[in-house]
This record gives sequence, C-alpha cells and structure tokens, in this order.
Amino acid sequence: MPATPFDWIDDEARRRADAGLVRRLRPREAEAEPLDLASNDYLGLTRHPEVTSAAADAARRWGGGATGSRLVTGSTALHAELERELAAFCGFEAALVLSSGYAANLAALTALTGRGALIASDAGNHASIVDGCRLSRAETAVVPHADPEAVRKTLRGHGGRKLAVTDSVFSVDGDAAPLAALAAVCRAEGAALLVDDAHGLGVLGEGGRGALDAAGLAGDADVVATLTLSKSLGSQGGAVLGPARVIDHLVNTARTFIFDTGLAPAAVGAALGGLRLLRREPERALRARTVATALYEGLTAAGLTAVRPDAAVVSVRAPSADAAVRWAADCRTAGTAVGCFRPPSVPDGISRLRLTARADLTDEQIARAVETVRRTAPQS
Amino acid sequence: MPATPFDWIDDEARRRADAGLVRRLRPREAEAEPLDLASNDYLGLTRHPEVTSAAADAARRWGGGATGSRLVTGSTALHAELERELAAFCGFEAALVLSSGYAANLAALTALTGRGALIASDAGNHASIVDGCRLSRAETAVVPHADPEAVRKTLRGHGGRKLAVTDSVFSVDGDAAPLAALAAVCRAEGAALLVDDAHGLGVLGEGGRGALDAAGLAGDADVVATLTLSKSLGSQGGAVLGPARVIDHLVNTARTFIFDTGLAPAAVGAALGGLRLLRREPERALRARTVATALYEGLTAAGLTAVRPDAAVVSVRAPSADAAVRWAADCRTAGTAVGCFRPPSVPDGISRLRLTARADLTDEQIARAVETVRRTAPQS
Ligand SMILES: Cc1ncc(COP(=O)(O)O)c(C=O)c1O
Ligand SMILES: Cc1ncc(COP(=O)(O)O)c(C=O)c1O
Repeated sequence: MPATPFDWIDDEARRRADAGLVRRLRPREAEAEPLDLASNDYLGLTRHPEVTSAAADAARRWGGGATGSRLVTGSTALHAELERELAAFCGFEAALVLSSGYAANLAALTALTGRGALIASDAGNHASIVDGCRLSRAETAVVPHADPEAVRKTLRGHGGRKLAVTDSVFSVDGDAAPLAALAAVCRAEGAALLVDDAHGLGVLGEGGRGALDAAGLAGDADVVATLTLSKSLGSQGGAVLGPARVIDHLVNTARTFIFDTGLAPAAVGAALGGLRLLRREPERALRARTVATALYEGLTAAGLTAVRPDAAVVSVRAPSADAAVRWAADCRTAGTAVGCFRPPSVPDGISRLRLTARADLTDEQIARAVETVRRTAPQS
Repeated sequence: MPATPFDWIDDEARRRADAGLVRRLRPREAEAEPLDLASNDYLGLTRHPEVTSAAADAARRWGGGATGSRLVTGSTALHAELERELAAFCGFEAALVLSSGYAANLAALTALTGRGALIASDAGNHASIVDGCRLSRAETAVVPHADPEAVRKTLRGHGGRKLAVTDSVFSVDGDAAPLAALAAVCRAEGAALLVDDAHGLGVLGEGGRGALDAAGLAGDADVVATLTLSKSLGSQGGAVLGPARVIDHLVNTARTFIFDTGLAPAAVGAALGGLRLLRREPERALRARTVATALYEGLTAAGLTAVRPDAAVVSVRAPSADAAVRWAADCRTAGTAVGCFRPPSVPDGISRLRLTARADLTDEQIARAVETVRRTAPQS
C-alpha cells in the first residue's frame, strides 16, 4: 500500500492494542437488554410512553429537523415552551436550549470569558468544560478537586473577568461539588460561578430541580447553570440557565449556538415530556438517590471499594484498566450492564466500574446487580 | 442593583444596539409559514411524511434519547444502520455518526491533527471548522479563499502531520471549493484533505452523493469528509466519513464523540428516512440546483448582485448590515422568509441576503420569491 497521510494512525492503534485500551462500538438491540446500570437514564424516562409519544408527536407536527440555526429558521414555539418551563422549574430567569450539553458548556464558557479572563476549573470537570476553557482563550487554572480555598487563591488578585466552573456532580465518581462554599468564594472575589448540572437535574433539589436548587443558588445574579436533556429527561440536547441578560448575550455571541442547527423537534418534545412527568411525579428524584445509596451499601457490604454517592452515580474501584474491562464484560455476560471508565477517559488515571441508579429499578434488581458485581469482582 | 460579575454584558449589549447588530429569537409556529427560502431543508424532506414517520417510529421503538455515550449504552443497531448506509451512499469505507455537524468537525480536526501538526484552513470556512482548529492545538494557517496554490505554499516545508480543510460549498456565498486541485496539492505535499460537505450532500454528485463524489474523491485513502444530517436529510446530527482506520481512530480518541451522548434515535431514524427517500428519488438533487440557478438568474436579471450558485445557496449583496436587516424584514412582511447574514457571522464583514433553494419549490414560488426580493431591495 502506498504511503498515506494517515499511516501514523496504525502506529497509535497498535500502541492502544498493546496497552489493552482499544474501544469498540457495540450497538444494542431494541429489546432483550441486560439489566441496565450503565446508562444515564436516571429516572427511567427515556422509554416512558409519555416521553416517546411526545417525541413522536413533535416530529410529526414540526418535522424531522429544526431546518436551520435558532437565529434563522431553527426556533419553534416548542423550543420557546421548553425554555420557559426549564427556567421556571429550575428557578432561573431564562434558559437557552442547544443541540447538546457539550455545546451548552462550550457556549457558556466561550461567551462568558475570553482573552484576559481567568477561569478556575475543577480538576475533575467534564471533557466539555475542559474543551470550553480551551476554546475560550481565557487563562485557565486547573484547581484541585472540590477545593473552594484553592479556587479562592486562584481567583484572588486577578484584575479582569473571572469565573469558577464545576460539575455539580462529577460524572466519574458521582461526588458532589461544594457549591455553597464555591459561591461564597466567588462572591468574595467578584467572580461568576458556572455549574454544569448534567448529573444533578432530576436527581438533586426539591423534586429534582437540580443541584442549584438544593444549594439555594438557583436564579442568583452571578450564577449560571448548564444542563443536559440527555440524562434524567430521557432526550438529547443541552441548555444554559441564568439571568436574562446572560441568555441574551449567548444568543448574540455564543458560536456553538449561532452556528449550529437548532435541536430537533423530537428531542425538544421528549425533553418537555420528561420534564412534565418529573413535575407530576417528583418522587422519582428521591427514588434515584435511594437506589444509589442501596447500591453503594450493598457493594461496600460485599467488601468492594466504592465512593459514597451524592446523586445517582456509584463508582467502584478496579485494580487496573484490564481488570476493569474484564469485570464489566463478566457483569454483562451475567446479565447486568455496568459502565467501565479507564484511561484516557478518567482525569486521575484510575479505572473503575460506574453504576448508575435508576428510579425504576426494583429492590430485587438492585440486589441482583450487587450480587453480580460482587461475584465477578477481580481477586485482589 | 449591586455590582455583579456580569455587568460588562450590559455594556456589550448597548454597543450591539448602537451598531444595529442585536439578534433576537423569533420562534415560528407549526403552520402558516411564509414561503421558506431561509432554511437549509434543500430537498424539502424535513416535513416529508416518510421522514417524520421514521423519526416517530424510532422514538417509539428505541426511546427518547440514546441514554449515554456511543461507547457505553448510546450505540443502537439503528446508529449502525445509518452509518453503513451513509458510507455506502457517499462512497466511503466507514462512517461515524455524532450529535451534530459541529461536533463532527471538532472531532475530525482534533483527532486527525494535534500539537506539532499544521492545518491549512480556508478563510471562508464554517465556524465549527475554525473552532476545531483552535481546539486541536495544531498550528493553523488561514489561507486565502479557494486558493490551492496558497495551500501548497502553506503546506510545503512543514515536517510533521499536515492537513488542509475546506467547506465543499461555502455556507455564506454558496460557492464551491476547488476540490480536485486541493486534493492534488495535498497529495503532492503529503497532506490529508478534510472536506466539510454540509452543503454538498443531497445536492451535488450523482443523485446527491455529495461534493466528494462529484470530484471523484470519495473513498480515497487520504480524504475524510464531514457531513451534517440537519440540512438535505431533514434531521439533526453529523457524521465523519473516511477510511475504516480513521473512523476507528475517532472512536478511540475524538473527545466530542467519546464524551457526548449519542444522537437521539428519532434523529437517526429521520436521517435514515431522508437518505432512503433520496436514494429512491435522486432527481431531487438536480432539482435543488435547478431552483438555485433559476433564483440567481431571476435576481441578476432584476439588477441585483448575486453570486452564481454552485449548489443550493444563493447569496445577494446588501449595501450594509442595517439595510440587510430591513430588506429581510420587508421580504418576510411580504410573505417570503430569506436569511440575513451580517457581522459578526460573516468572515469578510459583508452583509447579504441568503436564499436557499429547495427541490420542492414550484416555478411560481420561485418567481414570487424573486419578485419579492426585487421589490423590497434597498435603493442604492
Ligand atoms: C458533566 C457532563 N457535562 C456535559 C455532558 C455532555 O452532555 P451531552 O451528552 O448532552 O452533550 C456530560 C455527558 O455527556 C456530562 O457528564
Ligand atoms: C458548513 C457547515 N458545517 C457545519 C455546520 C454545522 O452543522 P450542524 O448544524 O449539524 O451542527 C454547518 C451549519 O450548521 C455548516 O454550514
């Protein structure tokens, strides 16, 4: 084969194979799933008939796509409805819906900072926050995990715009950020606080209103939240919540909003369906937390090392990347799907199983999952 | 009101207002649209019953969302089907579906370049390409628009990885890139060629197979294409097409693929529906081009300055940003929706109306649109 500009890709693939770090797609079928403790469908809504009907109805009524940027033809009355209801539910003045949570983080970070600004970003933050910091051209200081005093030291003394950014619930270990302390530090230092509530919405706060509601920070003038519609709400898409002037500013300046096609009507419909269901059945939020705690207690009682969950994510230590992959595969063979996080997808290089609680898991299913994870655990 | 870290936003808003550059969302209703020459629904498929039914069926069968990253629970057999059919239709070995065309460009650029690499990027490239270059940490040289010799001079002499990136059809002016000449230059210089075919798919090439098919470059070992599912196919989402090893590489390394929730089933279904319709009715592609030419000829015959369209986008010069906004508003009042592009959304600072041809426009509608644009034109 003649040389091509992609030959280096084969070398990288070989190195990955040697290190046991190859990733492959494994498409699932619509039926006959194993017991699912791997998805982010925390409230069990993505296959709820109300959610899927809302998606189907929206597609039929509004079309298969939004047809353009939200600033041209891509804004429908349905988008506006979702924005109003999301803002009201979470306790913010205004909301803006984007095509993904990833795009929402890129939008908020680039539009609210920029050259000359300083961002204090938690070491455990999600990849989309890291990429948003890079794109923003602000100076980014990665601060130690969940450490408000480190944030204070970083922000202090910077003269220009400053912002601290954190996941509300960290996606890998499921631990919560110290939001109240972070907000106090930001206020003292004149910085804005940006919180990615991807894993808090639907799980934390009163009736699932999210981590900002739980911390009493929702709607504050110096606080902005990003959300994803793809986890608790069972759909796809993302949103930014904040003061109206911040949302107007994003409409006018955020590149991943302006230059991206609007979220498809079916996804808008599904998210609205999920949100309305959650409002009607607020007990789902508490049940997701209860299930997470039960999983954690079962796993630690079985002698495994897990992180006490602050929301719906339960993280279990694995001795190595190889062992984690085998462990997850053995769980799947035994009928339980669990997530497997390993380098380079984990900021700290530690491999683990990641179990997600779902509000619709029964006590029997929880017991079965714990037993499967215990039985397949690597001998250490 | 006490000072907040967002007070600077009000100053920027005032400056925008003074410059007449404020953008506002104007949600549309499901019915009673004006004649639409503003969307990117080039083939008129987004409201086609086959497309909307495919979206609705997919939501009902697979759920409202993909529930996780494509690498965890977010890959369904439906995603795999779309990937196979897209690759086969466009003439590439493999395809990878992402949540947006924006994410596809970020994925391809970051995964295929990196620190030490050189990117030659056309001055007219889409914002998502510009952001992908920034995120990649490669050295980026912005080269003069549609100028293969400038690309040659830029690439020559660079020792490491190199890649040229271009829109196939530029989104603002609708002109086509000189793909054959660019490919020849890339080959001579040992560089990869990345082509964003967002506005070529469904319009150019045999039966809408895209600009790479038209240029005889589809499937070549050194060529990668990005697509969006949100324009001709009437849905939402994006894709990367290329050699299988490139696609495997993206699965393993592209952050906007790995750390993003998979595309919602409804959008996958709608795109599959649109693709199958296009395969069955290939004449839609030619009709979109014919409509564009008719619009261009009508507008220039009326004395307006327009760019001869190479695909389905027709760009008409406006004397100023203000005039463009008024012109577009007058068209809308007269029942025809047209796009209005103005700073900062245009790389060259020139304001214009942007009309998009749709395959399902009748000759009478074309005549009406031309007459409306002519009648409302600013006196110069
Ligand atoms: C903390 C966090 N933020 C943002 C995202 C991105 O959201 P989305 O998948 O909707 O793009 C995710 C996961 O996907 C996440 O875990
Ligand atoms: C040339 C080009 N590339 C990429 C995109 C982004 O695609 P998407 O809207 O599907 O994210 C667009 C338009 O939206 C575009 O015009």
